[in-house]
Amino acid sequence: MRMVDLIERKRDGKELTEEQIHFIIKGYTEGSIPDYQMSALTMAIFFRGMTENERATLTMAMVESGDQIDLSEIEGIKVDKHSTGGVGDTTTLVLGPLVAAVGVPVAKMSGRGLGHTGGTIDKLEAVEGFHVEIDKSEFIDLVNKNKVAVIGQSGNLTPADKKLYALRDVTATVNSIPLIASSIMSKKIAAGADAIVLDVKTGAGAFMKTLDDSRELASAMVRIGNNVGRQTMAVISDMSQPLGFAIGNALEVKEAIDTLRGQGPEDLTELCLTLGSHMVFLAKKASSLSEARELLEKAIQDGSALEAFKTFLKSQGGDPSVVDDPTKLPQAKYKIELESKEAGYVSNIVADEIGTAAMLLGAGRATKESEIDLAVGLVLNKKIGDQVQVGESMVTIYSNFEDVTEVREKLYANISVSSEKVDAPILIHEEITK
Amino acid sequence: MRMVDLIERKRDGKELTEEQIHFIIKGYTEGSIPDYQMSALTMAIFFRGMTENERATLTMAMVESGDQIDLSEIEGIKVDKHSTGGVGDTTTLVLGPLVAAVGVPVAKMSGRGLGHTGGTIDKLEAVEGFHVEIDKSEFIDLVNKNKVAVIGQSGNLTPADKKLYALRDVTATVNSIPLIASSIMSKKIAAGADAIVLDVKTGAGAFMKTLDDSRELASAMVRIGNNVGRQTMAVISDMSQPLGFAIGNALEVKEAIDTLRGQGPEDLTELCLTLGSHMVFLAKKASSLSEARELLEKAIQDGSALEAFKTFLKSQGGDPSVVDDPTKLPQAKYKIELESKEAGYVSNIVADEIGTAAMLLGAGRATKESEIDLAVGLVLNKKIGDQVQVGESMVTIYSNFEDVTEVREKLYANISVSSEKVDAPILIHEEITK
Repeated sequence: MRMVDLIERKRDGKELTEEQIHFIIKGYTEGSIPDYQMSALTMAIFFRGMTENERATLTMAMVESGDQIDLSEIEGIKVDKHSTGGVGDTTTLVLGPLVAAVGVPVAKMSGRGLGHTGGTIDKLEAVEGFHVEIDKSEFIDLVNKNKVAVIGQSGNLTPADKKLYALRDVTATVNSIPLIASSIMSKKIAAGADAIVLDVKTGAGAFMKTLDDSRELASAMVRIGNNVGRQTMAVISDMSQPLGFAIGNALEVKEAIDTLRGQGPEDLTELCLTLGSHMVFLAKKASSLSEARELLEKAIQDGSALEAFKTFLKSQGGDPSVVDDPTKLPQAKYKIELESKEAGYVSNIVADEIGTAAMLLGAGRATKESEIDLAVGLVLNKKIGDQVQVGESMVTIYSNFEDVTEVREKLYANISVSSEKVDAPILIHEEITK
Repeated sequence: MRMVDLIERKRDGKELTEEQIHFIIKGYTEGSIPDYQMSALTMAIFFRGMTENERATLTMAMVESGDQIDLSEIEGIKVDKHSTGGVGDTTTLVLGPLVAAVGVPVAKMSGRGLGHTGGTIDKLEAVEGFHVEIDKSEFIDLVNKNKVAVIGQSGNLTPADKKLYALRDVTATVNSIPLIASSIMSKKIAAGADAIVLDVKTGAGAFMKTLDDSRELASAMVRIGNNVGRQTMAVISDMSQPLGFAIGNALEVKEAIDTLRGQGPEDLTELCLTLGSHMVFLAKKASSLSEARELLEKAIQDGSALEAFKTFLKSQGGDPSVVDDPTKLPQAKYKIELESKEAGYVSNIVADEIGTAAMLLGAGRATKESEIDLAVGLVLNKKIGDQVQVGESMVTIYSNFEDVTEVREKLYANISVSSEKVDAPILIHEEITK
């Protein structure tokens, strides 16, 4: 088998066989297939696409390129949730304890990463003492005991995907639905998920800007999952504006606590209940989605979700008293209000620019080496559709430096107020199960 | 400027600017742009094509990537001929002395290369003593004096094209008309041509198998030439069967001598007169194509073309007496006739397979290291449309080994005889001047 012939095959719109795809991924991981052939192939894939069989095979070939986490010692169906990424997305912090409270095992492998705020681990480290340096057997014991634990990424998971992603990033081939879908799914499967709930964001603040593209990506991932024996479904949710109110690490932990107490932002609560219902249902802890939702609502009302969060924090060294006294979380030195210059209705909040404003405060990493300031960030006081008066605060800025001129300008430039009444955007566009 | 943005631009069907194309070719030649980005770009070009401006700019960027031969000391308009390659193509050997005889300067830079037979230099070396190891000033003096000389390829011509071609070869991006056209034209221009006559072959034995593809390539090259100030035209000629009768080095020298004497194969003679007329016309040695053709026919009739060949051979150390006594050329030990098993009309001669048969005898190089046997090869006694009797020779095999079973089988398998009358293929399909 020669790589050049396989590139030609794809270039000419023919399907690659299982054997050919495994040859490609094995050769590329080992280094016998050079970058310059792989980038020609990925560009051909950009133009020609991949069939459903090719996508499933590519995903499993990438899974098999490295270690696979064995979670079989954890009782029950391990359901993982994955979000395609947005601004102020606190769902992971809420969903872990929430579904754990109704008996769904959550064995979360998480990272730090770049972005507007830190990753899940960074956020949780806002709780004093909390750490993810636990070994695998302790991790499994914790999940079996508490139903929820978080561990840092370790092992050599999907090296083919890592290498391929780095190549796509510099060859203008990131933007290919089959390649994005296989990349995401391979990571979830290698991390041991039995079933997967996907939160595909759509809108200005999301990777996929249009509903059509989001639907295509969601459907591609759901089909891959179901084709390789992992029950998978996707929710397409709005990211035209940030989710919830808080964008920042400690600020999001506080927001998660509020939400687990039943006092969180409406959109974040609703999305968590929707995603959570699917997780509970896929984990077979409820026989219908409505039953699953009732269980979750009850866990919020009776305090068991909040209790699960405390137990989770404590078992990984964190101070659970922050749940009852969030002032124990890192506090910013300055609290500055962004007052509206106009009266009317908030008509637009450009999510990714608001995220960048939070990053300017120090809430996220611009490069791998950047240090995160866990205390700082933004809290939105108004969202799209809300009425606002002149002088009323639209955003509270939490900063550790006094001069926030640049941040204020960015916020003013990216929040629009209209004199006409505006509808709040639809939160959940679609649920895709096949 | 970042290469990844330029790949994305081309991927999305936008035109690359002159500055961007020069940045790419300079960076790639110097090594600051890696192979894996260049192969992604060439695959995007495969799908998106290139505009006329992009093609002209790419050609000149490749010309400027290395040395350019300065032929300004040669008097007159230097017209180069280029063929896209076929089987048994003796035109170069004929055209040099033929157009030189009417005063057109032919400053030929030639190579050896791989293929069914050797390159032009290999063929000429069948004449005892002939050599191309002359320095540039001697070369120029010879062209000024005799109007024709051949020199081996030297200097660092179009390094960008060499590097790019090697990359395309292993990434399934050879087959792109804009890239093929720019590659060929950059080499001709760097070698100092003022005007260019292209012989684009079409049919089973050619790189371009269909008339449509051949026309597209011819037109692409003609437009590049004319857009960068080199008058260029193309003839699309038949390569469904080998051109002329001879396939082999010494055998083709003999065929060239026959043709210069007016006793060559009809198709070879006609193609040489057609291509030659355009060369003479572009060199402004005639005011019309018909006048140019008359000059060439006269040079054959009055012996001046043959005389020019003798002078050319002698001035580069060759023995001119081979022209009057071709038995002085290397002779094969065995001469074996391939007798027809059927009576009827020759209906097909698969050109590239016949070429491979000649290579099996030793007439061409399979790898760079192969040694060529100058004496061996094939002479066709029948061509498509000719009538043949049972037992009549269709091909004469010239071999230095006795057992030619494999060659015979290949020939039988690739020459068809039909009971119905067959027309000879059209030799010259089109002449393209813009």
